[in-house]
Amino acid sequence: MSKDDPGDRPAKDTHYATLRRAHRDARRERGEIPTPVQDRRKKAGAADWTAPKLTPDQVLLYGIHTVRAALDNKERRIVRLSVTQNALVRLETGPVGDLGFPVDIVTPQDLDKILGPDAIHQGAMLETAPLPVRRLSALKDSPLILVLDQVTDPHNVGAIMRSAVAFNAGAVITTQRHSPTESGVMAKSASGALEMIPYIQITNLADALEELHKLGFVSIGLDSEGPAPLEETVSGDRIALVLGAEGKGLRQKTRDTVTSLARLDMPGAIKSLNVSNAAAIAMYAARQHLTKR
Amino acid sequence: MSKDDPGDRPAKDTHYATLRRAHRDARRERGEIPTPVQDRRKKAGAADWTAPKLTPDQVLLYGIHTVRAALDNKERRIVRLSVTQNALVRLETGPVGDLGFPVDIVTPQDLDKILGPDAIHQGAMLETAPLPVRRLSALKDSPLILVLDQVTDPHNVGAIMRSAVAFNAGAVITTQRHSPTESGVMAKSASGALEMIPYIQITNLADALEELHKLGFVSIGLDSEGPAPLEETVSGDRIALVLGAEGKGLRQKTRDTVTSLARLDMPGAIKSLNVSNAAAIAMYAARQHLTKR
Repeated sequence: MSKDDPGDRPAKDTHYATLRRAHRDARRERGEIPTPVQDRRKKAGAADWTAPKLTPDQVLLYGIHTVRAALDNKERRIVRLSVTQNALVRLETGPVGDLGFPVDIVTPQDLDKILGPDAIHQGAMLETAPLPVRRLSALKDSPLILVLDQVTDPHNVGAIMRSAVAFNAGAVITTQRHSPTESGVMAKSASGALEMIPYIQITNLADALEELHKLGFVSIGLDSEGPAPLEETVSGDRIALVLGAEGKGLRQKTRDTVTSLARLDMPGAIKSLNVSNAAAIAMYAARQHLTKR
Repeated sequence: MSKDDPGDRPAKDTHYATLRRAHRDARRERGEIPTPVQDRRKKAGAADWTAPKLTPDQVLLYGIHTVRAALDNKERRIVRLSVTQNALVRLETGPVGDLGFPVDIVTPQDLDKILGPDAIHQGAMLETAPLPVRRLSALKDSPLILVLDQVTDPHNVGAIMRSAVAFNAGAVITTQRHSPTESGVMAKSASGALEMIPYIQITNLADALEELHKLGFVSIGLDSEGPAPLEETVSGDRIALVLGAEGKGLRQKTRDTVTSLARLDMPGAIKSLNVSNAAAIAMYAARQHLTKR
């Protein structure tokens, strides 16, 4: 059989082709059908764009929804917006001269180069300073907060922030180590929520839990071996839900510090949920309790 | 400033570098540190591996956990296993000769070529036939099932299957059009659940709902405009939860066909949840109702 014989290769309509197509479609979503960069630059009027110099603490946000939410957040200090002409229209910023920060017109390929091939930037990238650091004491009027014990995946943390805003939680608290820092990936998964809820990174989780207890919070650690179901465990009018990473769960020191441990009952063959699903259910159960009171 | 001046490029410790590092780390997770393919082949003993010919209806599964679950599923017909020596050890298959299907030893790079650069295959890929088609009538003894109205993202559908198994649901039902077919991406997100719960694709969702009603199911469509909260709406001892895609929600015909519409109350500034989070909460609420009865 000759090397060029198509029989040696999978047929076009195979699963392989489906996988490749999905990958290509995802790339298309990021911008228009690619044309040579020089042409695009001329068209887009972005002749001499230079990749920005970043300082180590800057945060790059991207995607229309995420950038729009950041522009709407008065506490978000903005360094520069790099945007395609199409995306600028979609962002509905009003006159660029009134924005108070520089705006660069770029091509989708310019942003690909900085953000990498997997970032769905939709033609918009914002350089910003991290949000101001908040203190735990600012949470004293919040009935519900979420504490994450070394949940490392920024997609999961972002999804949890989105649910936390939906359930009107007062903050998402994580450890400084083994937790994602504020980032574009997290912001994209949070679907705007990063701008709407304080993300507080603390040094020592056990100390933070003690401080929350002094502020009047009952802390409940989710644990598959917990002595009772969550809905029978929630009490009080200020609840801090504590969740660990999938697989690892809560650290021993965290287990020893929380007011109670509780489980989510799973009657099926799989006994653990994705951490963002577990967080959503826990917040729903806590809200049910708070509403009843 | 000369072209090579590092001042023109972002510093190594910037956020850009962090993004690139995350991307590289994700690639590393997929296999060992890459060395030239020829070398690796010699080491792995995979001298003359040829990419398999696939028929259009074959399903490619990958990832240790997913492949292990498929091997454990008696209903899964297996065509061939392509695996690195390391992954073969991790799969704990026992003697390869007793497996009853061919096993090819390959390099991680061989699998990269077929599955694309974004698939976290962990050195294991299984060619299989799709699972046997099930009929709705087989669900008559199940107290809880999940119906998805054009939820297109295979990651979300996979995550929902995992939660569905955790809550012991009897099936996940989707439409044949505008829903993902059984695939490696879905299987990976389902974390083994694809092998544990029937995934039933039907032609007409309204007809299927009518059939479920005849089987004794009460169907409840999740809708942000629903007249009452879900927990006040669940009734009966056989529940079919119906969810639509994020943004689009349920189609009009689906709204008209379900027994009731219900909402999940979100007190916060974001009024919609990720569909897999909404499904997890809905199943939790339905289980609470079923347990109480």
